Amino acid sequence: MAESNYFASNSRRHWIWKNMNSVGEKVKRYSGLAWRTAVKVGKEDPRRVVHSLKVGLALTLVSLLYLIKPLFRGIGQNAMSAVLTVVVVMEFTVGATLGKGLNRGLGTLLAGSLAFLVEYIADIAGRVFQAVFIGAAVFVLGATTTYVRFIPHIKKNYDYGVMIFLLTFNLITVSSYRVDNVWEIAKDRIATIAIGGGLCLVMSLLVFPNWSGEDLHNSTISKLEGLANSIEACVVRYFHDSENQETQDDSTEDLIYKGYKAVLDSRAKDETLALQASWEPRWSRYWHRIPWRQYTKVGTTLRQFSYTVVALHGCLLSEIQTPGSIRALYKDSCIKLAEEVSKALRELANSIRDKRQFSPQVLSDNLNEALQNLNDDLKSQPQLFLGSKKFGGTTHPEEDTKVSFSSVRGDCSSMFEYKSKEHSGEMSMEGHTKVLKPLMSKIAMTSLEFSEALPFAAFTSMLVEMVAKLDHVIDAVEDLAKLSRFREFRDEDEIVVTCERPKVANNDLPSYALD
Amino acid sequence: MAESNYFASNSRRHWIWKNMNSVGEKVKRYSGLAWRTAVKVGKEDPRRVVHSLKVGLALTLVSLLYLIKPLFRGIGQNAMSAVLTVVVVMEFTVGATLGKGLNRGLGTLLAGSLAFLVEYIADIAGRVFQAVFIGAAVFVLGATTTYVRFIPHIKKNYDYGVMIFLLTFNLITVSSYRVDNVWEIAKDRIATIAIGGGLCLVMSLLVFPNWSGEDLHNSTISKLEGLANSIEACVVRYFHDSENQETQDDSTEDLIYKGYKAVLDSRAKDETLALQASWEPRWSRYWHRIPWRQYTKVGTTLRQFSYTVVALHGCLLSEIQTPGSIRALYKDSCIKLAEEVSKALRELANSIRDKRQFSPQVLSDNLNEALQNLNDDLKSQPQLFLGSKKFGGTTHPEEDTKVSFSSVRGDCSSMFEYKSKEHSGEMSMEGHTKVLKPLMSKIAMTSLEFSEALPFAAFTSMLVEMVAKLDHVIDAVEDLAKLSRFREFRDEDEIVVTCERPKVANNDLPSYALD
Repeated sequence: MAESNYFASNSRRHWIWKNMNSVGEKVKRYSGLAWRTAVKVGKEDPRRVVHSLKVGLALTLVSLLYLIKPLFRGIGQNAMSAVLTVVVVMEFTVGATLGKGLNRGLGTLLAGSLAFLVEYIADIAGRVFQAVFIGAAVFVLGATTTYVRFIPHIKKNYDYGVMIFLLTFNLITVSSYRVDNVWEIAKDRIATIAIGGGLCLVMSLLVFPNWSGEDLHNSTISKLEGLANSIEACVVRYFHDSENQETQDDSTEDLIYKGYKAVLDSRAKDETLALQASWEPRWSRYWHRIPWRQYTKVGTTLRQFSYTVVALHGCLLSEIQTPGSIRALYKDSCIKLAEEVSKALRELANSIRDKRQFSPQVLSDNLNEALQNLNDDLKSQPQLFLGSKKFGGTTHPEEDTKVSFSSVRGDCSSMFEYKSKEHSGEMSMEGHTKVLKPLMSKIAMTSLEFSEALPFAAFTSMLVEMVAKLDHVIDAVEDLAKLSRFREFRDEDEIVVTCERPKVANNDLPSYALD
Repeated sequence: MAESNYFASNSRRHWIWKNMNSVGEKVKRYSGLAWRTAVKVGKEDPRRVVHSLKVGLALTLVSLLYLIKPLFRGIGQNAMSAVLTVVVVMEFTVGATLGKGLNRGLGTLLAGSLAFLVEYIADIAGRVFQAVFIGAAVFVLGATTTYVRFIPHIKKNYDYGVMIFLLTFNLITVSSYRVDNVWEIAKDRIATIAIGGGLCLVMSLLVFPNWSGEDLHNSTISKLEGLANSIEACVVRYFHDSENQETQDDSTEDLIYKGYKAVLDSRAKDETLALQASWEPRWSRYWHRIPWRQYTKVGTTLRQFSYTVVALHGCLLSEIQTPGSIRALYKDSCIKLAEEVSKALRELANSIRDKRQFSPQVLSDNLNEALQNLNDDLKSQPQLFLGSKKFGGTTHPEEDTKVSFSSVRGDCSSMFEYKSKEHSGEMSMEGHTKVLKPLMSKIAMTSLEFSEALPFAAFTSMLVEMVAKLDHVIDAVEDLAKLSRFREFRDEDEIVVTCERPKVANNDLPSYALD
């Protein structure tokens, strides 16, 4: 009995010990993960650390209002409202803080005025009428402001202000029923909000300010460069694959994908930044308001442009592939054209970065030359459209276009999985264990005999289409340069963009745009 | 003198009268505009009106806490906190309200616990130490929570909760320096937040509830249908144009554009809805949690699919156009394939709407047949790849591919302007007055001699590519059906989708998907 007790307690001790160990390990693992995440977030953008410290400092300063005796007497109990204002209004960039602060201030002022009007009317008659009137006013104002918040223009610019309006209105109106010195409440609230808001503005404007406008400016530059990388990598990869199927690696795929992904997903972020930037008191060097809306327009044309890049990338991943022998014929002129497009994009990026105008002439000359080259190649070697076997000469085209559908790529499904993995983390987990779906395999197995030239023609067509779309990007950037009054193009601004081809099968790829 | 005075006063009166008139007109115009906007917002989604009334009602109810005497005694001054909670927490859908309410509740509870710990430590030593300690705690917590809000996972799910945590922590900690009954403050705050939050939940759950999950479900269906319309209109328009250049009208353009635009821009909205839906206590008919994340995955594959539609649309707007005589040869099989793709999309939409599985077999059979048709056409009429003039027979291909670049469309720039106008309202204002840019005209004028077949090849290639992308959409919807445990496909679910071709040059187009 004693023995069994001993064993029992021993095994219990063992169990506890084991459990504690496993809990300890779990804590260690999770704290390690948390630490890594925290470091990563900080490394991605070190300004985040600075901003956190700024918020901490602002909160401590505003708390002094309450902690230090003389100040406390002046402000009274309502000092808390200043603390709340700091927590709510202090945002990452100057523009966001200003926008929120002004919204909060205006909302409070408007609500205060209206609340006093309501109180004045409510005071006319007896107690019951007053309660009913206040209740009705709360209902009407509550419903109206909620409805107003659905209007797109209001939602975009003044959503927070309308909410604060409703909040303050209710606070003052409802309080007025029980409290006599409503005026005091309102005055204190406005004063403390002003103190809190003012402190936020000072902190975000004067202590290491972050500007939404700057972020927008930089993200536009990095999007242009990302697209340039994407196109180059795409074309190099297309022709590289045809030469050497073995050296496919994921890093190029990654480069292509990240380049256009950043552009495709940029709409909401761009618009928010432009909106915040429009609150920021920034002027160009000619004392001229910087046209932030034009940046979003450049973003729009870039998105249109990027759809072509997606289609180009689609040609790479296509199930039907043109044989390498055909591709090789047009390799140089295609790569040249893609390089010129990339160069033009980089030149646009540089012109925005240096805040100068660019020379559309130089850009268009090079592009036209490259287009002409491709055109000449297509003319001089028309076998593209005759199948791969018999080059030139007199042939029966009916026979030759019937090249059988031989190069269905075995790895296409894994390619697609790779892409979908990028899009949504969990997807690939299912994808890998899944066998080929009946439909997919069926399409692949019917061995259709589409001309093998078809996808290559699409690829070339997309390249040409890209030049047309580039034109709209150039237009938008030109407008931006004019509206921002960038300095004129000078001869020493000679385009010095070097056209490095991203090396396939090499990990140290140009990564400056993949922020 | 008197006369001049009379005239002066007369003219002043006239001036005032005129001014008042113009002010009156302005007021009339603006109030008219405001009224029209309000009506439009309500018509777009009548649930908005209901929601506004619900918020008004909730606010009035919570104000009663303060207005009615017995209730007021119980709750005390802190009743205001309940009113504020209602203003802040009450959102349009159940999921959003629940998410915000739980965030607010948890944040408050956590902050309360921590604040008491801090107060306990601060109470140990003297008054000065207490002040310093509170200040330090405010700084450290302020900086830490701000930093934590940058972590993507926290930002996405708990941003509001972390903010409320910081807010409440500061409120209690700082108050504790001057007020003795902090426990009372904290208790009242928690109680009132619970009352306010509870009221919000009751109102949004029981009175005409709006479900984020339902919105996500419906938007997925309408996106599928929008894409189907877009593709059909695109193909019909492509071949219609070639027959009759005159009857281009903007309504088809609009239909094509809106169809894919809704999909392209859907990412942020889908993810928000899925997040909110995951808070909602909804179960499928098998008491199985509905996999909302899978809806966003369907959305992702749809976006990938839509890039091909954009490229297809790009072929329509391309500067180089294949002559109608060539297009006419493949018209039927191309239209057939596009119809099958649209039909498949509509079938997917219907299966999601009816919450049933679909038959991949049926879909793939039809698609394969259509693909085979197109393939046969391309085989039997290979003159596509030989230029438009000499059909069939033995030819010298070198000569025939040199078809000159004759069909640069004069209206391409206006087309692009139309598109960019859609994207950003102001753009077209500038675009219309702008003459053709030097670069643009230069590219157009060099009269390149790209084979006219190139863009048509791209068009066909995109159609085929689309089938491959459709496969991923089908996969995703199949997974959705499995995970949601939709009912099995039965024979009576025979596909009854009618394939109406959207009639070009007709304004009453199918608009059910263009919400």
